[in-house]
Amino acid sequence: MTQKITAAITAIDAYLPPDKLTNFDLEKMVDTTDEWIRSRTGVIERRILKTPGLASSDMAAEAVKNLLEKKNIDPLSIEVVICATVTPDMVFPATANILSDKAGLKNAWGFDLSAACSGFLFGLQTGAALIESGRYKKVLVVGVDKMSSIIDYTDRNTCIIFGDGCGVVLLEPNYEGLGIIDCILKSDGAGRKHLHQKAGGSLKPASIETVTNKEHFVYQEGQPVFKAAVKGMADVSYEIMQRNHLTSDDVQWLVPHQANLRIIDATRERMGLPEEKVMVNIQRYGNTTAATIPLCMFDYESQLHKGDNIILASFGGGYTWGAIWVKWAY
Amino acid sequence: MTQKITAAITAIDAYLPPDKLTNFDLEKMVDTTDEWIRSRTGVIERRILKTPGLASSDMAAEAVKNLLEKKNIDPLSIEVVICATVTPDMVFPATANILSDKAGLKNAWGFDLSAACSGFLFGLQTGAALIESGRYKKVLVVGVDKMSSIIDYTDRNTCIIFGDGCGVVLLEPNYEGLGIIDCILKSDGAGRKHLHQKAGGSLKPASIETVTNKEHFVYQEGQPVFKAAVKGMADVSYEIMQRNHLTSDDVQWLVPHQANLRIIDATRERMGLPEEKVMVNIQRYGNTTAATIPLCMFDYESQLHKGDNIILASFGGGYTWGAIWVKWAY
Repeated sequence: MTQKITAAITAIDAYLPPDKLTNFDLEKMVDTTDEWIRSRTGVIERRILKTPGLASSDMAAEAVKNLLEKKNIDPLSIEVVICATVTPDMVFPATANILSDKAGLKNAWGFDLSAACSGFLFGLQTGAALIESGRYKKVLVVGVDKMSSIIDYTDRNTCIIFGDGCGVVLLEPNYEGLGIIDCILKSDGAGRKHLHQKAGGSLKPASIETVTNKEHFVYQEGQPVFKAAVKGMADVSYEIMQRNHLTSDDVQWLVPHQANLRIIDATRERMGLPEEKVMVNIQRYGNTTAATIPLCMFDYESQLHKGDNIILASFGGGYTWGAIWVKWAY
Repeated sequence: MTQKITAAITAIDAYLPPDKLTNFDLEKMVDTTDEWIRSRTGVIERRILKTPGLASSDMAAEAVKNLLEKKNIDPLSIEVVICATVTPDMVFPATANILSDKAGLKNAWGFDLSAACSGFLFGLQTGAALIESGRYKKVLVVGVDKMSSIIDYTDRNTCIIFGDGCGVVLLEPNYEGLGIIDCILKSDGAGRKHLHQKAGGSLKPASIETVTNKEHFVYQEGQPVFKAAVKGMADVSYEIMQRNHLTSDDVQWLVPHQANLRIIDATRERMGLPEEKVMVNIQRYGNTTAATIPLCMFDYESQLHKGDNIILASFGGGYTWGAIWVKWAY
């Protein structure tokens, strides 16, 4: 019988720009307070990529170089790069190609994957399939966003939430049944009216008018997105436990997308997990869109053990949402 | 022994907007002639999506609906949609999510894949892996671009080349060894300096200045791209024959990306194929970026036979390039 290949996360790393934007900084920019931001979102500070001329590929190249150095992996051994982002350096070519050039991944093909806040999960499942197919043995899945490039810092509803950052994982074949075990991924394009960027695509190309009207920024209607997120992320996280007969005792960690502490809490409660089983770093980085989930796993890496059952969960623009069950491989 | 699953193209369809832009129209817009355009590129006319308020997702939804109706497939049975495009409706959410909503694909998750002119091939290999992994049984791979949204119609070097359109294929598991057999995919981000869109990403967000400077359009340096394309597309097409011991007699069809007739000819000659084995429709549609390869297969569908050896080949922005060997399944 052919040996069953699973796709395991075998390394993880990250890059965060050094500049911080705190709630106290924001108090001076828009009509808000540190207390209001903390209680409504959980965010205390975010990182911002301020250096002129740097973009998503630069954060991603640093994260990838960190990972390769830490694990002493030859850049030429990387075969595929999937870059989940909504803030590519350019409309084309792909940031995956640019970061590969900057990090010396000369033998890799790759592409950008656009699925908003679920980009990393959709990329992880896609990368896992490339491994499971038997065609590839070293696939990088990057989640990176320079959200500061599409945030209106006069809009107090969105500028308090988002930050910049990058996380990356290496996927390799595993023959012990560890790695990506199951996934439930969903989309509903009807949700686009509540969360989108109005201009800059083929529907409304950039013009003097779109720039003047501030249509190149994140547009979000807070209440409908919040409600859909609470339901969507909790539903799939519960469903993936149910269909795999996982009890709350079986699950060591929930790794939720970091959009809002209250959405995270609703998912945790639905899964019956205590707070200490939930990875949270929203207070330091805010919502980094495609980067939140790998940034969390990176922060908690030392607390993970081989065989741990981890549920990754996301909800975001599209709408897109999903949950992935990972058995940690190291 | 576990039965080997391959991913077969089991249906193909397309959508082309009705409005034509001919070489004679272009003679009135920029300093060019029909004779010059024909002899240098092979293009005679292109389709343009002119209806206000329509974008890439609208062409894609029509192509998908055409495919589902032709094959009498339930939209609810589609599990994944990969949408290769450089002209998504919006920066986010993904056009895959929007087209799924418009075509009634309520059970599909999906994402946009950005790899410029190689987007369809990279998407096809990615979709094939999702099938080969055993996790999915119905995956749509869409190639769609509304290039007219990023073309400067005062630039005679680029406006003569590009057009709008969409092609889509359905991938399903095959147990007879038909479908996607082998692939060689490549990228080299160093090529970005010759072919890109300067503004509209996180490196250079839209501003009054970027709009005024016309930086939201395709920027292409013809000569270096032409040289790299001739070499890149011919090299991988020859290599995939060599490593699979395919002679020119074994190959029934070359399906090349439709960027330029001379690039196509160079690839054909390297592979030792006669002209009648090459799919060409550049004269009618120009370069539709991610859509050229499925549009070609759609046009030639009636001439394809079960078991035919087909080599798909592309070169484009990134640089990205590649070749895929498909054994036609029906």
